[in-house]
Amino acid sequence: MPLVRIDALRMDRERLDVLGDAVQQALMETIGIPADDRFQILTNHDGGASTLRHGTYFDIPRDDGLVYIDITLRAGRTDDQKKALYARLCHLAGERARVEPRNVFVVLRENAPSDWSLGDGVAQYLG
Amino acid sequence: MPLVRIDALRMDRERLDVLGDAVQQALMETIGIPADDRFQILTNHDGGASTLRHGTYFDIPRDDGLVYIDITLRAGRTDDQKKALYARLCHLAGERARVEPRNVFVVLRENAPSDWSLGDGVAQYLG
Amino acid sequence: MPLVRIDALRMDRERLDVLGDAVQQALMETIGIPADDRFQILTNHDGGASTLRHGTYFDIPRDDGLVYIDITLRAGRTDDQKKALYARLCHLAGERARVEPRNVFVVLRENAPSDWSLGDGVAQYLG
Repeated sequence: MPLVRIDALRMDRERLDVLGDAVQQALMETIGIPADDRFQILTNHDGGASTLRHGTYFDIPRDDGLVYIDITLRAGRTDDQKKALYARLCHLAGERARVEPRNVFVVLRENAPSDWSLGDGVAQYLG
Repeated sequence: MPLVRIDALRMDRERLDVLGDAVQQALMETIGIPADDRFQILTNHDGGASTLRHGTYFDIPRDDGLVYIDITLRAGRTDDQKKALYARLCHLAGERARVEPRNVFVVLRENAPSDWSLGDGVAQYLG
Repeated sequence: MPLVRIDALRMDRERLDVLGDAVQQALMETIGIPADDRFQILTNHDGGASTLRHGTYFDIPRDDGLVYIDITLRAGRTDDQKKALYARLCHLAGERARVEPRNVFVVLRENAPSDWSLGDGVAQYLG
């Protein structure tokens, strides 16, 4: 169910794939997402016609290695679960895809069970 | 008002347009969206620098024909209306754009009337 | 914190950057976003493989100069603040980036303080 959008700047495809793997691993370890519940849109921006921009908010010295990780999932996770997700995701992004902690930007969006159809025209979470 | 983002992988433009038409038709038939209330961002990924990834969750054998259809709309539709939307959208995507039912992934995001400005710097739904 | 996605059609990069500046300025002036709290994904569509589509809803004669400005931020702004944001954003987009008022489409998405990690694997808004 989570739908993950990752936007990166001039990142080679192999690293982008590995970053996607790291995000999935963090979702599995911290909030119980199954391995095969993986849905990702990986977008690389060339810095020409399309690009990413960032500020230094919270005194974090981000650079062009910044990645935006935008995760939509059903509501219900606790603040502690979200904190565990951020920490683990940041760690794995660094370890596996060499994204520095200062460059890992995550936003969550919550919706309802009725808001998903994962195929076949059915609302799977409504049973 | 609905803002629709469709992400596909190596889909030729004509099919992508027709898929957009099918989504609009389903919104019109099932939840009463007017024909001219059509706002879509159609993104084709080349599978090189940018791509889509998917799992087999719910035992659905998706493949690279998968399309992510991401619809933002004001809150208020019932579960039954959403179910009707998913079913009709899946049917029309198949009939018109030859997207197989297993490859139609839909996510809804609800927001408030105050969250929209459809032009001219005005919040149209606040009257 | 706001994460801003701007999607435009065949807009040269310089104008797209200036449009990003205009959006940030409007956020600063109307809802108190700090200057360095700037996070933007600027996507230009070539009208070939990827494109934007639009209707005439609310009798607004949009054309291919349309821009979709999609802003995710924490909940809490009043309707009046949102209205001020739309008006100012529309004005600045015109003045600075020559986007006509009829072509400025804005959607807001609200979430919670726990839904953000702006770097370092931490949920900054949870203190």
